[in-house]
Amino acid sequence: MTRNIYEQHLDRNDANYLPLTPLTYLRRSAQVYPDRIAQIHGDRRITWAETYERCRRFASALQKQGIGLGDTVAVMAPNVPALFEAHFAVLMVGGVLNALNTRLDAAALTFILNHGEAKVLITDRELNDVMKDAVADLGRDIFVVDIDDPEYTGDNDHLGTVEYEDFIAAGDPGYEWSYPADEWQACCLNYTSGTTGNPKGVVYSHRGAYLISTGNALAWNIPSHPVYLWTLPMFHCNGWGFPWTVAMVAGTSVCLRRVDAGNIFRAIAEHKVNHFCGAPIVLGMLINATAEQRRNFDHPVKVMTAGAPPPAAVLLKMEREGFDVTHVYGLTECYGPAVVCAPQDGWSLLADEVRAETKSRQGVPYHMLEDLMVADAGTLEPVPRDGETMGEVFMRGNLIMKGYLKNPDATDAAFAGGWFHTGDLGVWHPDGYIQLKDRSKDVIISGGENISSIEVEGVLYKHPAVITAAVVAKPDEKWGETPCAFVELKPGVEVTADEIIAFCRERLAKFKCPRYVVFGDIPKTSTGKIQKFKLRDMLPED
Amino acid sequence: MTRNIYEQHLDRNDANYLPLTPLTYLRRSAQVYPDRIAQIHGDRRITWAETYERCRRFASALQKQGIGLGDTVAVMAPNVPALFEAHFAVLMVGGVLNALNTRLDAAALTFILNHGEAKVLITDRELNDVMKDAVADLGRDIFVVDIDDPEYTGDNDHLGTVEYEDFIAAGDPGYEWSYPADEWQACCLNYTSGTTGNPKGVVYSHRGAYLISTGNALAWNIPSHPVYLWTLPMFHCNGWGFPWTVAMVAGTSVCLRRVDAGNIFRAIAEHKVNHFCGAPIVLGMLINATAEQRRNFDHPVKVMTAGAPPPAAVLLKMEREGFDVTHVYGLTECYGPAVVCAPQDGWSLLADEVRAETKSRQGVPYHMLEDLMVADAGTLEPVPRDGETMGEVFMRGNLIMKGYLKNPDATDAAFAGGWFHTGDLGVWHPDGYIQLKDRSKDVIISGGENISSIEVEGVLYKHPAVITAAVVAKPDEKWGETPCAFVELKPGVEVTADEIIAFCRERLAKFKCPRYVVFGDIPKTSTGKIQKFKLRDMLPED
Repeated sequence: MTRNIYEQHLDRNDANYLPLTPLTYLRRSAQVYPDRIAQIHGDRRITWAETYERCRRFASALQKQGIGLGDTVAVMAPNVPALFEAHFAVLMVGGVLNALNTRLDAAALTFILNHGEAKVLITDRELNDVMKDAVADLGRDIFVVDIDDPEYTGDNDHLGTVEYEDFIAAGDPGYEWSYPADEWQACCLNYTSGTTGNPKGVVYSHRGAYLISTGNALAWNIPSHPVYLWTLPMFHCNGWGFPWTVAMVAGTSVCLRRVDAGNIFRAIAEHKVNHFCGAPIVLGMLINATAEQRRNFDHPVKVMTAGAPPPAAVLLKMEREGFDVTHVYGLTECYGPAVVCAPQDGWSLLADEVRAETKSRQGVPYHMLEDLMVADAGTLEPVPRDGETMGEVFMRGNLIMKGYLKNPDATDAAFAGGWFHTGDLGVWHPDGYIQLKDRSKDVIISGGENISSIEVEGVLYKHPAVITAAVVAKPDEKWGETPCAFVELKPGVEVTADEIIAFCRERLAKFKCPRYVVFGDIPKTSTGKIQKFKLRDMLPED
Repeated sequence: MTRNIYEQHLDRNDANYLPLTPLTYLRRSAQVYPDRIAQIHGDRRITWAETYERCRRFASALQKQGIGLGDTVAVMAPNVPALFEAHFAVLMVGGVLNALNTRLDAAALTFILNHGEAKVLITDRELNDVMKDAVADLGRDIFVVDIDDPEYTGDNDHLGTVEYEDFIAAGDPGYEWSYPADEWQACCLNYTSGTTGNPKGVVYSHRGAYLISTGNALAWNIPSHPVYLWTLPMFHCNGWGFPWTVAMVAGTSVCLRRVDAGNIFRAIAEHKVNHFCGAPIVLGMLINATAEQRRNFDHPVKVMTAGAPPPAAVLLKMEREGFDVTHVYGLTECYGPAVVCAPQDGWSLLADEVRAETKSRQGVPYHMLEDLMVADAGTLEPVPRDGETMGEVFMRGNLIMKGYLKNPDATDAAFAGGWFHTGDLGVWHPDGYIQLKDRSKDVIISGGENISSIEVEGVLYKHPAVITAAVVAKPDEKWGETPCAFVELKPGVEVTADEIIAFCRERLAKFKCPRYVVFGDIPKTSTGKIQKFKLRDMLPED
């Protein structure tokens, strides 16, 4: 077959084709806005020019340590400059950043460090108790860099022989980084929380990191120079891509070692923070903050939330507090958020409760996610857009991971049929918005009827005494399964199980109402996700 | 060499890698905002769902006509829905859109249609006089679709046998378009104005069209749902990519058959237009508008201008009229704008004149243009960032064309050394902003000294009587060349050549001042670019 006229001498070359990489965002902001503040951490202010120089030194230091193409660099840290900078420096040498979940135990960390074959570990002194054990069990040597953050005042020992600032100071500030040879090259490794079995290592590409950045800007209408607060851990899907997004729009990244309502309000008031992300648990912190924790602010603050479908009641309360909440949905496998509940003009006219319910749906694809559907898990046939028929959520496009590291079977299963299988169950509304009903493993099947734990939780959150609620299946001789509610109450409030159940009966079909209610603390991950697998171990006896 | 762990079983597949194409923006807006107005044209309102359906019908009709991969579809039209829709429909079948410059003569059009091998011509009835001659000289058959726009009330004949609305009505509204097999696939063909010799056909890719869209949104801080007015011809670098940008952000595209101050002010007042683009000539129209042409408006209106460095005086007047002007720079070869004079915080504090001068610089790379430099044309060695040393402007990155169609020599020359050679001359300021001093062929060399025609024009524009000014080299026995000024005056104002020269002497080194001043109309292209090659034929005798 002859080539058409457009296929002759119009090839890619060095002038017209460069691999997409978020590194160009950092370089551009350093060149165009050298003196703008890139990072705020305690009393420190680091400009974009300085950040770029620090990243180049960091990259150079890694290279001297032998780190190059395809080598993994693990970082165990809260949201501090070293972790932010690792999102660029590791990529500059062709390496892969593995940001570790700071809440993991030593055994899980040992597994991850060995599975990911990390050659360098950069670890914050506060976390050295657990890291010490994890490193001791590696069965091999690993080069350790300690982060000795002045904002941390505890007294743990160092684990390695060099401190982060000294490590990068020895690097070359003029280090010339290279583009990846191919934009499909790996840049990050993030382990799923792995509720069953070993965690899986999700691998991101430079192309995907580049595109999640523009996706975030478009989905959230981020203008130039936002002030972004790090309430979301950077180890969680690389902070949903926000280190790169903030670099792209030359914003200011406000670090935060400890996420609590007082710190958040203080940052909003002092640094004029106007954007932050967080699981609904963070929203809950804010609406339940004490008078001492609160600060007045009069500028608009936008909040992006995900991680669990936020209860309508929480969304509504946030709105009343003056926060503009955008609800997004995603998984580690899709760079964090890849679906957004994009607001529609008419929504402002809806009654409060209806609007909050509407905004708690997961929504529509990001601009950079090519396809999203709710479909039959077996046939991949899309379900009707009737808001009722349940199916599995499938995605396809440039915001989907490369695959699971060293796990071809899991990778193939995740991509079977040319779609990424999320494992989430939901419905498709007539307006094209999807709404999650449950993780497939969290559905409660009672008397043959499916019960969405999310639906029941939504009702529980409406109860004025409830701060957090989770519903799981309790094995039942008669019904197969029956819903059991776990509930955290506001301090000082008393309410009985019967009152909770009666509250549900007024709002739900009887078979969906919890038969059991357990009061007390609910176990959560560091990102505020409720750990239902732990609740299943805490089920009451009959 | 063994592959590293990230190169094993982590390949591209149908679920995680899709070619970047602006077609996904159209589909998304149609699905997420089906009832929002996509196009306004006269009394017509066309929603995004309708636009998508019309494009699918259009694509299907093209396919029935035999149009497929690598086939060229030419469109000769002002800014009407058919041309907007062609930016999607032609791409859906794998074709290449060639939007024709409506000001060209028949001979140039015949050349372009044959060089681009257009198989279908879609032509607006208003332009059929010239198209008739162009088609008659083709020496081959071409399938012609007439656009019979109700907004055009003249009485030209049809050229073909089918009208656009009938043509697309016969297409399938459910037509399933395909992604390009490769995002590098050609999608558009734009001919340069070709001041010497035959015009060159600049070829764009789906990838580039996708990226110029996000580039425009980031450079201009475009939020969701702008109302965009088509003052810039869509045949000019595909309207700088704005058909795709507007689709991406689900904006409203306000068509405009005829660009004049009255129509622009009316659209701003009636449709709440808040974004438009145009050459400085359009800005000139607005600041010189009559009281009858003006309309009051109280919403912010952003204007993107390029095509020639806007005189500081024009920028300043626009600002005083309440327009927020962003200055961009580019060429057909870089999808239109690829460089932006990104505003800095401190600029609002500058004195008016200084700020206007500052904003008239060309600026810094778009987020999606990887590299920009001013360098020695021979060695490609960057010039010092001193704001004084002249060099040629070079660009590199994903906003650079695939190349020139059927012109390997010109393509190779344009990309020599791995950079795109713009042919523009300029300086690099210490803050990284570039400023054009001239096209290399427009520099005047007088007594061995380089004179920037742009610098002299900038002074002429400050004269209160001057509407348009252009300076070209006049051959001179003594000096080699000497500057000759062409000047258009405001209606009813009288001024002598001596007064103009004296005005320049007060503001410029004597050797830079025009020795000759010619009053009268200055020939311009349809996009408002001054045609200096014509002025060179109009030089006065000594």
